[in-house]
Amino acid sequence: MKVKGYAAQSADSDLAGWEFERRTPGNKDVSVQIEHCGICHSDIHFARNEWGSTSYPCVPGHEIIGRVVEVGSDVSRHSKGDLVGVGCFVHSCRTCGSCHDDLENYCETGVRGTYGGVEDDGVTPTRGGYSSHIVVDEHFVLKIPENLDPAAAAPLLCAGITTYSPLRHVGVTKGHRVAVMGLGGLGHMGVKLAASMGAEVTVLSRSPSKQADAERLGAHDFVLTSEEGALNALVGRFDVVLDTISAEHDINGPIMSLKRDGTFIMVGASPTPHALAGFPLIMGRRSVMGSLVGGIAETQEMLDHCGKHDIVSDVERITPDQINMAYERAMRGDVKYRFVIDCTQF
Amino acid sequence: MKVKGYAAQSADSDLAGWEFERRTPGNKDVSVQIEHCGICHSDIHFARNEWGSTSYPCVPGHEIIGRVVEVGSDVSRHSKGDLVGVGCFVHSCRTCGSCHDDLENYCETGVRGTYGGVEDDGVTPTRGGYSSHIVVDEHFVLKIPENLDPAAAAPLLCAGITTYSPLRHVGVTKGHRVAVMGLGGLGHMGVKLAASMGAEVTVLSRSPSKQADAERLGAHDFVLTSEEGALNALVGRFDVVLDTISAEHDINGPIMSLKRDGTFIMVGASPTPHALAGFPLIMGRRSVMGSLVGGIAETQEMLDHCGKHDIVSDVERITPDQINMAYERAMRGDVKYRFVIDCTQF
Repeated sequence: MKVKGYAAQSADSDLAGWEFERRTPGNKDVSVQIEHCGICHSDIHFARNEWGSTSYPCVPGHEIIGRVVEVGSDVSRHSKGDLVGVGCFVHSCRTCGSCHDDLENYCETGVRGTYGGVEDDGVTPTRGGYSSHIVVDEHFVLKIPENLDPAAAAPLLCAGITTYSPLRHVGVTKGHRVAVMGLGGLGHMGVKLAASMGAEVTVLSRSPSKQADAERLGAHDFVLTSEEGALNALVGRFDVVLDTISAEHDINGPIMSLKRDGTFIMVGASPTPHALAGFPLIMGRRSVMGSLVGGIAETQEMLDHCGKHDIVSDVERITPDQINMAYERAMRGDVKYRFVIDCTQF
Repeated sequence: MKVKGYAAQSADSDLAGWEFERRTPGNKDVSVQIEHCGICHSDIHFARNEWGSTSYPCVPGHEIIGRVVEVGSDVSRHSKGDLVGVGCFVHSCRTCGSCHDDLENYCETGVRGTYGGVEDDGVTPTRGGYSSHIVVDEHFVLKIPENLDPAAAAPLLCAGITTYSPLRHVGVTKGHRVAVMGLGGLGHMGVKLAASMGAEVTVLSRSPSKQADAERLGAHDFVLTSEEGALNALVGRFDVVLDTISAEHDINGPIMSLKRDGTFIMVGASPTPHALAGFPLIMGRRSVMGSLVGGIAETQEMLDHCGKHDIVSDVERITPDQINMAYERAMRGDVKYRFVIDCTQF
C-alpha cells in the first residue's frame, strides 16, 4: 500500500514529504492510520546518520499513536477502530530466552527497530511513524487507554517505557527516594512515573531554570548540583538515581548519593565513555545498571498504569512542515518536553 | 598489655620489629594469640601511605588466625583455646541500618578497620595482625573450622569473604557461568568459591602462564583475552564476571561477555577511573556492582562453607624477617597466591 510521510534523503538534507510503499497486511498484521508521532532524540541521530547505520531514504519515528483501520484474518488482539500504539520495535525472533521472558527488547538475535531494521524480506528497510499509515504484527501493537490525550500519550511508547521499565525492575515503590538527572523528554517522564509509584522524587540539575518545572511535574525536591558541595550533602540519600543525560557528565558524585545497595540507572547513552571510579561502587555495594526501553507486556502495563494515573507527556504539537525546525530546537534542548507531529497532515 | 610485632615507622622505611601496647581486654573482649597473618595488597598500600591516611608507626594485617588466650567476663561466643579469626574490621556502630542488617562492613558511621582506625579512646590507632596478640570485641571474632589448615585459612578473612560475599549476593548457584578476571590473591579464591557454589568457572587472563593453575584451582575453562577476537566470541556468555584486577584495564569487553541481566562485580579498586561505555550496559540491562568484604555473619557463613568444602587459600609461609621481601614479590605479582606470616616468631 502507498503511504505518505516525511523522510530524510541523505545525512545532510532536511526531511521532506515522501511517498513510499508499506507491505500489504498479512494474516497477523494490523494496519494503523497514524494520528500522532513523537520526536525522539534517536530520530535525529538516525536521520543524520550519526550512528553510521542509516540507509536512505529514512523515515524516523517510534512513538506512534493511531487507529486500527484493517486487521488480518488471524488477528485476535486488536479490532478495527481501536486506539493503538507502536513503539521502538516491530519484530523479534519470538523464540530466544529474552523473547520467551517477554523481553523482546533484549531479543538475542537482535530486535527489529520500527525504523532502521529490515522487513521480513530481509531487504526493505523498516520505516517509522513520520507517516500516514503503518503495518505491524499484532504482537507489537499496544492498546492505548481511551482516557489519555492521544497526542500526549505518543511519547509514552519510548520516553515512557524507557523510564518506567528500569524503575519497576529495581522495585521502586512507596517511600523510596528517587533522583532524576536530566529534565528532558526522558527525565520529565521519569519524574512523573517515579512519583506515581509512590517515590519521593528529587531532580538533580545544573540549571536553576528547571526548578519550577520539576515541582510542577511532581518532584518533591530540587537540588542545584552546580552549587559547591551540593552533591556532598546528598551522600547515601537515594535508593535510585535515574540518569537520562545523554551528553558527557560526571556520574561518580551522583553514584555516591545512593544508599547502600542503591542503583544508578543509565538510560541516556553518552557518546563517550563515562569515567567510573571504583570506590563509590565498592564502599556501598552500589550498582550501575543500563536499561533499554521495555518488552511488549511491560509496555502495555506501563500504558495501563498511565491510564489509571492520568499520566501523559508534556508535548508541543507540530505539523509535518515544522519537523526540521523541531529538530533544531530539540538539539538545543528547547522543547517542553517532546514534539509530537500531527500525522493526519501528511 | 605489651605485644610484639612488625611495623613501618614511615612511608619509605622497611617494616621492622616493634613492641607496642594493646588495650587491656574489657568485659566483651577476646584476647587472641596470633598464629598466622596473611599479607594483603592493602597492607602494602597502607604501610607505604599510598592512600594518604596512614599514621605511623603502623602495624598492618587483617587476615588473622590465632587461639583465644583470655576472654572478658561477658564473652559468650568464644572460649579459651578456640581457633578464631579476625578480618578487616574490629568495630562498627552496631546501631545503623547496615549494622542492623548484619552488614557491619557498610556501617553508615564508618566501619573501624583492624588497622588504620582508632580505638574507643578516639586517639590510639588500631594496629593489625603482624603481631603476637590482638584484643577484639567478641562480636568481630570468627570461629575457624578445625579441619582447615590455619595458615592457609588466614586469607579467607579478607580474600575469601571479598569474593564470597558478592558471589552469594548475586545468587551464584549450580549451572551459572562465572568468569574470573585476575588470578591473584582474590581471583584464586574467586575461582575456588564460585566452583564450590556449583558454577561453571572461566578464567579470563592475558597470561598463558595462568592456564595450568586456573584448571588446578577448579576452573572449567580458560580464555586468553590477549588473543584477537577472544572476547568477541564470549558476548552474552556469563551470568557473572568477578573482576579482581586492581590495575587499570578495559571493562567494557568483559561487560559485553555477560548475559542479559548479568552482573560485573568489581572488588579490585583501580587507582584511576574505568572508562565505562553506556551501550554494553544498556543493550542487555547489565550491571556493574561494587562490593567490600562482607558482614560478620556472612564471614562466619563463608568460613563454615569453606570448612564443609575443604577450601583454603594457596599460601607461601614466611617468617617475620621475610615480610619486606614478600612485599617486593607481591608487588610484582610473584606469589601463589598469598604470603602468610608465622606470627609465633615475633
